[in-house]
Amino acid sequence: MKVGFIGMGIMGVPMSKNVLKAGNEVMVYNRTPERIAPVTKAGAKAVQTPKAAAQGADALILMLTGPEAVDSVLFGENGVLGGIKPGTPIINMSTVSPAYSRQLNERLAASSAVLIDAPVSGSKKPAEDGTLIILAGGPKEKVKELESLLLTMGKKVVYCGEAGQGSSMKMAVNLLLGIMMEGFCEAVNFGQRCGLVTETLLEAFLAGPLSCGLFNLKAEMLKNDDFPPQFPLRHITKDLRFVLQTADENGAAIPIGSSLFQLFRLASGQHWGDMDFAVVKKILEAMSDR
Amino acid sequence: MKVGFIGMGIMGVPMSKNVLKAGNEVMVYNRTPERIAPVTKAGAKAVQTPKAAAQGADALILMLTGPEAVDSVLFGENGVLGGIKPGTPIINMSTVSPAYSRQLNERLAASSAVLIDAPVSGSKKPAEDGTLIILAGGPKEKVKELESLLLTMGKKVVYCGEAGQGSSMKMAVNLLLGIMMEGFCEAVNFGQRCGLVTETLLEAFLAGPLSCGLFNLKAEMLKNDDFPPQFPLRHITKDLRFVLQTADENGAAIPIGSSLFQLFRLASGQHWGDMDFAVVKKILEAMSDR
Amino acid sequence: MKVGFIGMGIMGVPMSKNVLKAGNEVMVYNRTPERIAPVTKAGAKAVQTPKAAAQGADALILMLTGPEAVDSVLFGENGVLGGIKPGTPIINMSTVSPAYSRQLNERLAASSAVLIDAPVSGSKKPAEDGTLIILAGGPKEKVKELESLLLTMGKKVVYCGEAGQGSSMKMAVNLLLGIMMEGFCEAVNFGQRCGLVTETLLEAFLAGPLSCGLFNLKAEMLKNDDFPPQFPLRHITKDLRFVLQTADENGAAIPIGSSLFQLFRLASGQHWGDMDFAVVKKILEAMSDR
Amino acid sequence: MKVGFIGMGIMGVPMSKNVLKAGNEVMVYNRTPERIAPVTKAGAKAVQTPKAAAQGADALILMLTGPEAVDSVLFGENGVLGGIKPGTPIINMSTVSPAYSRQLNERLAASSAVLIDAPVSGSKKPAEDGTLIILAGGPKEKVKELESLLLTMGKKVVYCGEAGQGSSMKMAVNLLLGIMMEGFCEAVNFGQRCGLVTETLLEAFLAGPLSCGLFNLKAEMLKNDDFPPQFPLRHITKDLRFVLQTADENGAAIPIGSSLFQLFRLASGQHWGDMDFAVVKKILEAMSDR
Repeated sequence: MKVGFIGMGIMGVPMSKNVLKAGNEVMVYNRTPERIAPVTKAGAKAVQTPKAAAQGADALILMLTGPEAVDSVLFGENGVLGGIKPGTPIINMSTVSPAYSRQLNERLAASSAVLIDAPVSGSKKPAEDGTLIILAGGPKEKVKELESLLLTMGKKVVYCGEAGQGSSMKMAVNLLLGIMMEGFCEAVNFGQRCGLVTETLLEAFLAGPLSCGLFNLKAEMLKNDDFPPQFPLRHITKDLRFVLQTADENGAAIPIGSSLFQLFRLASGQHWGDMDFAVVKKILEAMSDR
Repeated sequence: MKVGFIGMGIMGVPMSKNVLKAGNEVMVYNRTPERIAPVTKAGAKAVQTPKAAAQGADALILMLTGPEAVDSVLFGENGVLGGIKPGTPIINMSTVSPAYSRQLNERLAASSAVLIDAPVSGSKKPAEDGTLIILAGGPKEKVKELESLLLTMGKKVVYCGEAGQGSSMKMAVNLLLGIMMEGFCEAVNFGQRCGLVTETLLEAFLAGPLSCGLFNLKAEMLKNDDFPPQFPLRHITKDLRFVLQTADENGAAIPIGSSLFQLFRLASGQHWGDMDFAVVKKILEAMSDR
Repeated sequence: MKVGFIGMGIMGVPMSKNVLKAGNEVMVYNRTPERIAPVTKAGAKAVQTPKAAAQGADALILMLTGPEAVDSVLFGENGVLGGIKPGTPIINMSTVSPAYSRQLNERLAASSAVLIDAPVSGSKKPAEDGTLIILAGGPKEKVKELESLLLTMGKKVVYCGEAGQGSSMKMAVNLLLGIMMEGFCEAVNFGQRCGLVTETLLEAFLAGPLSCGLFNLKAEMLKNDDFPPQFPLRHITKDLRFVLQTADENGAAIPIGSSLFQLFRLASGQHWGDMDFAVVKKILEAMSDR
Repeated sequence: MKVGFIGMGIMGVPMSKNVLKAGNEVMVYNRTPERIAPVTKAGAKAVQTPKAAAQGADALILMLTGPEAVDSVLFGENGVLGGIKPGTPIINMSTVSPAYSRQLNERLAASSAVLIDAPVSGSKKPAEDGTLIILAGGPKEKVKELESLLLTMGKKVVYCGEAGQGSSMKMAVNLLLGIMMEGFCEAVNFGQRCGLVTETLLEAFLAGPLSCGLFNLKAEMLKNDDFPPQFPLRHITKDLRFVLQTADENGAAIPIGSSLFQLFRLASGQHWGDMDFAVVKKILEAMSDR
C-alpha cells in the first residue's frame, strides 16, 4: 500500500516507522522537516507539502497536535485536499474532540474523502513496540478494510461506531488515564507524608489488584523524582479540556474529572507542562504542608 | 501453631479457613455465633468469649469492622487481655486509622502483648484464594517470625515499618483504590453518555495500560448494572474517613480524595451503602442530566 | 433620544419600560411578539424586524439570551446591520463571554457601528426598580456620552475598560454570585441537618457581616421551600460555562467555581433549570443522607 | 454582677473590656499574664488561676482557642470546677464542635454547673465595638436571664436551642463565612487575570446585591495586598475541621465546604496561617498560571 503519513512528533516517528516496516510505501511530511530524518533513513520518502503526501496515496494518516494542525494540513495551502484521490480514507489519529471529528467528517464527505477517526491508547513506548490500542470510528466496512494497516501500529483495533466515536472513546480513555495517574501520585504523596518509604509504597501498589501497565511504567519516575516526557502534561491538559466540553455537551457528570482539569492546568502553568504528566506528583507535594 | 481468630465477616471466614487448612489449630470467636458454622465445619473450635480464644494461643488474629469492635474484643468484659500469655502477638488485620494503631500499640505494650498491625489489600475473592497482600507494621523480627502464618492467608507480606505503618499503608492503598474505582465508573458513564456501547468501553479499557485486576473484577458489575457486595460501599466510606483524618494529621494534600469522600458518603447515604462500592456508578448516573 | 430595544425577556421588559419612562422614544422588537404587549401598552412602538428597530435609532440596546441570539439579531436576515446609521452605538446588555464580545467588537467596527458591552448586575427586581449596576466596556467617551441613557435602567455605571471588559466584569460578578448563593444554601442545609430551625439560621446569617441584598432577597425562598424564577438556574449555569472558558483562557485558578459548575449543571439537568438558582438547595438536600 | 473572664486573645481583651464598661466587676485570667495589662488598666482584677476567677463569680466567661484549652481551664489543676458555686453558668464563647459542647454539657451537669455555649459571629472590630452576634445554646430561661450580660459584648443574641446548638450555629456561620471569603478572592483574582483593575472590581462587587459587611471590611486588604490578622487563617481552618466532622456526623452534604478546607489547610501550611484568612487570595494567585 502507498501511505501518506503527516506529523512526525513523539508518536508519529515510531508509528510511521512501523507502517514502513510492514512493507508499505510511505511518504512523510512534517512542518519542521528536520524531524523527518530518522524515518527517511528507515526508507520513507520525504515530501515538501501535505498535498504531495496525498498524491497517489491509498490512505493518509495524520498524527498531529490538535484540531488547528489538522485543519491547516487538510484545508490549508498545498493541503491534502488538493492532492487526494476521491474516496481515499483519511485516518486521523490525532486527539481531537468528538464534536470536531463529526464536523470534520461532514467537511470531508463534501470533498468525497472518507474520515476514519482513530486516536490511540498508549504513548511513546507502545508506539515504538507497535502495541498501541487503536480506537476507530467511521464506516464499519472501511475500518475492517484498513485493519491490517492499523495493526502495523497497534496490537488491537477497537471499533467504536460512526465517525467521531473513536474520538469519544479516546476522551473516555484519557479521562480514566488522568484520574488514575493523579490517584497514583496522590496516594504515593500521602504515604510519604505518613512516613512510608517510596519503594515500599510502590511494592504494595504493584503487588495487588491495582497494578497495571501505567503504574509499572511510571513507578521509576516517582522513585527518581524525575519526569522525562512520555506523555507531556500539556497534552493531557489539552485533552481534558476536550473531555470537559464533551461531558458538558452530553450531560455527563464528571465531578472528579473537572477537579482534575483544574489541577493539571495549574501544574501545566507552573513550568511543568513539558514534563511527563506524572509530574502532577510535584504539585501535590507543593500543596502539602511544609 | 495454636491461633485464636476473632471476627467472622466476609473476610474473616475465608481467612480463618486458610489458616486452618495450613495445619494450624484454630479457635474462632464471633459476636454473633451463627456465622461461625462454616469454619467449625472445616475443623476450627468455636469458643464463647474473646478471652477463651486467647487462652493458650501462640498468636491472635483480629479481623473486625473497626476500632470500636477491636476495643471491645481486647479490653471489654471477657476480653482478650484477660486470657493472653505475656508476649503473645496480637495481629490486627482490621482496617483502623494509623493514629488508633499507634495508640493501641502503647496500650498493648503496657499489657506486655505485641501489636502487629496487618491490614490487607484485596477483598472477598483473594481472601478465599489466599492471595491477599498483607501490609504489616510492628517489630521487624516479629513480623519475620510470623511471616509463614501470614502467608497462609496471602501471597505477599509487605513490611511497612513500626506498629501503625501497616495501617498507614492500608490508607494509601484504599485511597488509590477508591480513586481508581470512581475513575473507572466516571469514564464508563461518560462514554455511555457519548453513545458508546458499554461492552466496547470495557474492551478498550481492559486492553491497554489501564487494565488491572480491579477493573477486570468489576467489569461484570457494570455490564449487568448489578452490584453484589464484595467490598461494601459503607466500608470504604468509613476507610476514607480515616484517610481524611490521617491526611489532615500529616499535612498531605488530597484534593481528589476529599471530593471522593463526599461522593461516597452521599452514595452511601442513599441506600446504596450495602452494595459493592462500584455502585458509585449509580450516583454518577443520577448526577448526569436526564 | 430614539432607542431601538431588542429582547423582551424577564429583564428586557422592565428595562425597556424604564428607558421609555425617562422620556425616550422606544421601538421594541422580540422574536415572539406576544411578549411585547406590556411595553407597547406603556407607549413603546412595536416593530416587526431587528432592522426596523435600528432604522432611525440613535442607540440600540440588546438584552438577549446569549451569543446565538445576538448573532442572529445583528447579522441575520432583516438584522440590525441592515438598518443602522454609521457610528450608532450598539449596547449589548446580554450576558456573553468576553471572547465573544471582543470578536463582536471587531465585526461591528468593520460595519462602522460601535459596540458598548454593558451587561448588568442584578435581576428581575432591580430591573423593575431601575437600580441595576451596569458594567460597561467600550470607548470611554462613548460610555460617558451614553451614561444618562444607561442610568434610566440602573443606579450606577461602572466603567470597566475597552469593549469586552464589561463582559469580563459580568463573569467576575456571576462567579461570586454563584458561589455566594451556593454557600448560603450549603450553610442552611448544614444547619437544618444539625437540628437548627430555618428561621433561626436565617436570623443569624442576616444579622451579621454576611448579610447582603442577595441573601435578604432569597431568604423567603428557603423559608417557603419554593423557588419561583428571578434568575433561572439554567441561565447562571450558562454564564458559569462562559466563566470557565474565560478562566481557562486567562489562566485563572477557579477551584470552587469549577466545582460549582458541576453542581449547577447537574441541578439544571434534574428538571430544576427553570426555577430560581436558589433551588441549588434542593440538590444539596438530595445529596445529603436520608 | 461579678464575672470571671478567662482568655485574653484578640477577642477576649475587647470583649472583657466591654463587660467591664457596662458596670460589672470582672476578674480576668490568662495563661500568659502579660496580655492582661490592657484590661487591668481598664479596671479589671487579675487573678493567678482559673479557680480564682471562678471564686465568688456569678457567671464565668471563656474565650479560648479551642477544646484543649477549655478542658484544661475547667478540669485542670486549679481549674474553674474547684472554685465555682453550684448552679453558676459557664458561658463558653470559644469555638468548639457541637459534639464537644454536648459532651461538655454532660460533664458540667455532673458538677452542677450550667453550660451556655455562646460562640460569636464577628471578629476583632465588632468585638471592640460591642456589636458581635451571639449564638447561644443552653436552657432557654438561663439564656434569657444572661441576655443583658451578653449584650454588653454584642448587639444581638440569637437563641439556637439546647446546649451544643450555639456551636452548631457557629459552624453554619463559619461555613458560609469561609465560602464567601474564598468566593470574593476567587472572583477578584479571576477579574485581575482578565485585565480588570482591582479598584473597579471592588467597586462593582460593593455596589450591588453582593455587598456585605465582610467584603467592605476586607476590600482594603485586597487593594493593599496586605493581610494583617483580624481572623487568622489558622483559626478558620481549625473551625472548618469541626464543620467537616459535624457535617459527617449529621449526614450533611458540603461539596464546596470540603474543597474549601483542602484549600485553607494548604494555605495555612504555606506560612500564611497567622495572617488574616483573606490571604486565601495569595494561594489562588499561586495556583494561577504565570
